[in-house]
Amino acid sequence: MIDFQGILHKVYSEIGNRQERGKVATYIPELGDIDINKFGIHLVDSAKNEYSEGHSQEKFSIQSISKVLSLTRALSLVGEKLWSRVDVEPSGDPFNHLSLLEQENGIPRNPLINAGAIVVADVLVSELKNAKVEFLDFIRRIANDPSIDYNLAVAKSEKNTGFRNFAAANLLKSYSNLKNNVDEVLDFYFHQCSLEMNCAQLAETFFLFSNRGHCIQDQKFLSVNQVKRINALMLTCGFYDEAGEFAFEVGLPGKSGVGGGIVALLPNKFTVATWSPGLNKKGNSKLGMEALEMLTTETGLSIF
Amino acid sequence: MIDFQGILHKVYSEIGNRQERGKVATYIPELGDIDINKFGIHLVDSAKNEYSEGHSQEKFSIQSISKVLSLTRALSLVGEKLWSRVDVEPSGDPFNHLSLLEQENGIPRNPLINAGAIVVADVLVSELKNAKVEFLDFIRRIANDPSIDYNLAVAKSEKNTGFRNFAAANLLKSYSNLKNNVDEVLDFYFHQCSLEMNCAQLAETFFLFSNRGHCIQDQKFLSVNQVKRINALMLTCGFYDEAGEFAFEVGLPGKSGVGGGIVALLPNKFTVATWSPGLNKKGNSKLGMEALEMLTTETGLSIF
Amino acid sequence: MIDFQGILHKVYSEIGNRQERGKVATYIPELGDIDINKFGIHLVDSAKNEYSEGHSQEKFSIQSISKVLSLTRALSLVGEKLWSRVDVEPSGDPFNHLSLLEQENGIPRNPLINAGAIVVADVLVSELKNAKVEFLDFIRRIANDPSIDYNLAVAKSEKNTGFRNFAAANLLKSYSNLKNNVDEVLDFYFHQCSLEMNCAQLAETFFLFSNRGHCIQDQKFLSVNQVKRINALMLTCGFYDEAGEFAFEVGLPGKSGVGGGIVALLPNKFTVATWSPGLNKKGNSKLGMEALEMLTTETGLSIF
Amino acid sequence: MIDFQGILHKVYSEIGNRQERGKVATYIPELGDIDINKFGIHLVDSAKNEYSEGHSQEKFSIQSISKVLSLTRALSLVGEKLWSRVDVEPSGDPFNHLSLLEQENGIPRNPLINAGAIVVADVLVSELKNAKVEFLDFIRRIANDPSIDYNLAVAKSEKNTGFRNFAAANLLKSYSNLKNNVDEVLDFYFHQCSLEMNCAQLAETFFLFSNRGHCIQDQKFLSVNQVKRINALMLTCGFYDEAGEFAFEVGLPGKSGVGGGIVALLPNKFTVATWSPGLNKKGNSKLGMEALEMLTTETGLSIF
Repeated sequence: MIDFQGILHKVYSEIGNRQERGKVATYIPELGDIDINKFGIHLVDSAKNEYSEGHSQEKFSIQSISKVLSLTRALSLVGEKLWSRVDVEPSGDPFNHLSLLEQENGIPRNPLINAGAIVVADVLVSELKNAKVEFLDFIRRIANDPSIDYNLAVAKSEKNTGFRNFAAANLLKSYSNLKNNVDEVLDFYFHQCSLEMNCAQLAETFFLFSNRGHCIQDQKFLSVNQVKRINALMLTCGFYDEAGEFAFEVGLPGKSGVGGGIVALLPNKFTVATWSPGLNKKGNSKLGMEALEMLTTETGLSIF
Repeated sequence: MIDFQGILHKVYSEIGNRQERGKVATYIPELGDIDINKFGIHLVDSAKNEYSEGHSQEKFSIQSISKVLSLTRALSLVGEKLWSRVDVEPSGDPFNHLSLLEQENGIPRNPLINAGAIVVADVLVSELKNAKVEFLDFIRRIANDPSIDYNLAVAKSEKNTGFRNFAAANLLKSYSNLKNNVDEVLDFYFHQCSLEMNCAQLAETFFLFSNRGHCIQDQKFLSVNQVKRINALMLTCGFYDEAGEFAFEVGLPGKSGVGGGIVALLPNKFTVATWSPGLNKKGNSKLGMEALEMLTTETGLSIF
Repeated sequence: MIDFQGILHKVYSEIGNRQERGKVATYIPELGDIDINKFGIHLVDSAKNEYSEGHSQEKFSIQSISKVLSLTRALSLVGEKLWSRVDVEPSGDPFNHLSLLEQENGIPRNPLINAGAIVVADVLVSELKNAKVEFLDFIRRIANDPSIDYNLAVAKSEKNTGFRNFAAANLLKSYSNLKNNVDEVLDFYFHQCSLEMNCAQLAETFFLFSNRGHCIQDQKFLSVNQVKRINALMLTCGFYDEAGEFAFEVGLPGKSGVGGGIVALLPNKFTVATWSPGLNKKGNSKLGMEALEMLTTETGLSIF
Repeated sequence: MIDFQGILHKVYSEIGNRQERGKVATYIPELGDIDINKFGIHLVDSAKNEYSEGHSQEKFSIQSISKVLSLTRALSLVGEKLWSRVDVEPSGDPFNHLSLLEQENGIPRNPLINAGAIVVADVLVSELKNAKVEFLDFIRRIANDPSIDYNLAVAKSEKNTGFRNFAAANLLKSYSNLKNNVDEVLDFYFHQCSLEMNCAQLAETFFLFSNRGHCIQDQKFLSVNQVKRINALMLTCGFYDEAGEFAFEVGLPGKSGVGGGIVALLPNKFTVATWSPGLNKKGNSKLGMEALEMLTTETGLSIF
């Protein structure tokens, strides 16, 4: 038996108060105003025991972490045919570059970069009657928590400043890889990214990826095969152009967001979420990365 | 004395009815419907004598040729400080690629590629009270012809399908190299590109570039220095990624448009416009290129 | 208990004789002459039981698979400081492109692309007295098999046609990321790639990566931490620009070579090698990929 | 009549002693040791009158300027079929980047970037019995000066440090766009670049490009058509990624070298050579660029 609480306490003690905390994202005021001293961690093991340290009950903007959830919903709706519109290869480039999209005729490298997630959003807008409402409902059911919601101020700010996403969506449209109206797709996309959760909710939501597709209430959302595929994508593409570094240092499938959250998991063992709003140069939470590296060292657990 | 009429007649006889005419642009219906058998040529010499052959009185969409005219207006308004927002180097890439824009931090390579022309349009929207009205008035004055007008159906079609231009404008905006609203700038840009002229009007409009900045009515629009600069830009950047080929085969500053028009000039000697709607693989009028190559061979005149 | 022999038999029966076998590499005669109908598979489980089907005792050129072994030797010699000269990120580009190398100032994306493996080779040439002799000895000790050897004819052919590798090595040299003479480093590199093994030897050699750094004779060659890192690299970078696809479809760390070999492993469970010389469009063994996909489906085992 | 001597004197007085002189190239000792205070200018008009100021009789390494001369020799040997192996478009990238070469399947953008000049060198090695001897003889005949020679120490230094050129040549070889041995082609190339001339010799050598293909002794070396083509190439590609700027500011076909030399010409009017070893950030002689800009302003002469 692993003493998860003891290890989380040790991680929190050693890392939670480090001086070097990276820089908070400032491109919208709602993110820029967050207190950089926040640090939370929450772990759910395979027996659904829960362990917490720090500000694990405080909500933050999950941002790009939501891409895994929209992908999950899209896969459950359209299945494998999704892969004709988005590839599964690491991008080898920062998350917002459009160059590759041009070189590869409008097929995004993978669904966890912005362009790929916009294609996924387009699928949801096509397949759902009211994508914003139904996607939120889907998240609440996975998490078993009806209090989870969008932050409308964040969604609005993203819309007002998200010129690169408008560029990506229009470029996709020029390659006929966007079926709906650019504004409608991005409206959904910006809402999706504005979802707020705390570390506990985030770990509970992603529990299904370490539990063969069954959520924390034991409802089945994905096949074992689909879970494996999403985990593989998180491992190879979940951390912008630091995915290799994360696989190398931590060795777990996971996904980070510019709001400072990271979620990671070891199949059949545990799901863990961290939050610290300061980012490293690659755009991933600085203390979050360090905490997860220490966690795998202390537990001796990794997929490798 | 060069027998321009005789040479134009020879060019028209040999080239105007060639079987291989390229392909008409079809991305909007207004261009796709043009009769591929059209061919016109019109030349104005330094003494303002005019020579014509073929469908030289039939109007067509000047499209990218308008970029030289918007640049002319912007230079006359803001002068050299324009060059802090757009460079003067050949792009070495097809006219609509965004990759270079990313590599070079939002500074377009030159004002004759789409991204650069959108920056120029932004300057006009900033500097003029009503850009669409005042720019049209400016063109009419240069050409000494109040009948020149936008084609509103073309402008509207471009707006409905111009996703790459929306992508470029949003990308520029993300680099803070677009001051006005994307929709407003592109509305002006699509109107500008929809300008219609016939070969005679086009040659007369560009007369000022072979006449040291004085238009066909002898009104001064640009300094000698500014004319030299625009001519240099036309020579190095006027033909998408076939600029080198044109300099090499023809040896004149010029500009082509996807509507099948080309205008070219030899300083202090002549200005010539051709129109044939079939395009070669690089997007330049196939017969137009061949006609201009024959023209320089027959006259023995080129800047080199 | 998993019936590995039964599963291997099923894999061999279903896949070993498929009509669509890809294309044999032909850039050197020694590879082009291989019989495309060959197919072998060999698996070693954690208890060192061995299972085989098909041409598993026939030697082939391991080619790029050797990059994992040279990396192993280099890591054991210089440790973590290797990472100042080569990165750990997926390349997102075919294995032989030099573009990224230019963009990133001579630091190869990872040690499993050619440019990265050439840097690793340079380390071995620097650190060993006689790199060719000592590296071969190292491989023989890991594999516990003194019969393993270079194929000198293959090494010579590679040298005579490996212009892209000469280009990469010279480019590295121009960035001062090659310490020794280009010819000397490539001479070692071409020998390394010419190593010949059969499936059984290959699986036994890579046994240490599924056995926490201890080889099949229980001798320790790498720390647990180093093994994790190399496995992470194989998962994210082991299959040229099909790494994501392999992680996605198979879900095991592994490495392929242009000679048609693939080796893959599940930590603490098994190591498996396949050989079929026909390659798919991405340069990986077509039937090998299919066999490993079927193996993980049948066993239900993967890291995800 | 233009007072060339007066203008040259003015240029020399104003520019020759400027404090800001750029930086001398230091990648080989032979270039790094040059006195940065040197400045020479020499002009030959269409009547073969010669005008000089400053260190116009001091020899320097012409480096990349030699690419125009090797192109001239290759064109006279193989004619238009040269263009199947090298294109005529501006590169839009610094002179030594290999990325474009990969994107464009081994066809260099133009013969004035390194990769293109190496293809031209390969043509000369194929077509001439002893390329080094015969090319030197060719230059001496154009210049009417048997004292012109290679600098063997410079050629040797280039060979020892020219890793990027070795990379380019090997990459060309991998695309089968190099017929001879890499070492043999580069040996010729490094000698060609090591040619030494003073400003007077350089202007006299390039006289043929402003004189319709007839050298200063009135011997014909190129057709009028070939001269036009080479002049077009110099204008669009002669100044690395500053070609547009030079066309824009100066408006003359020309070519610069990393040794600090620049030669430029106005067809049927004059040929001018400048030398000042300090380079600007783009690799072109800083004072040379300024001098030529002033020259065209003072004379009022340019091709535009």
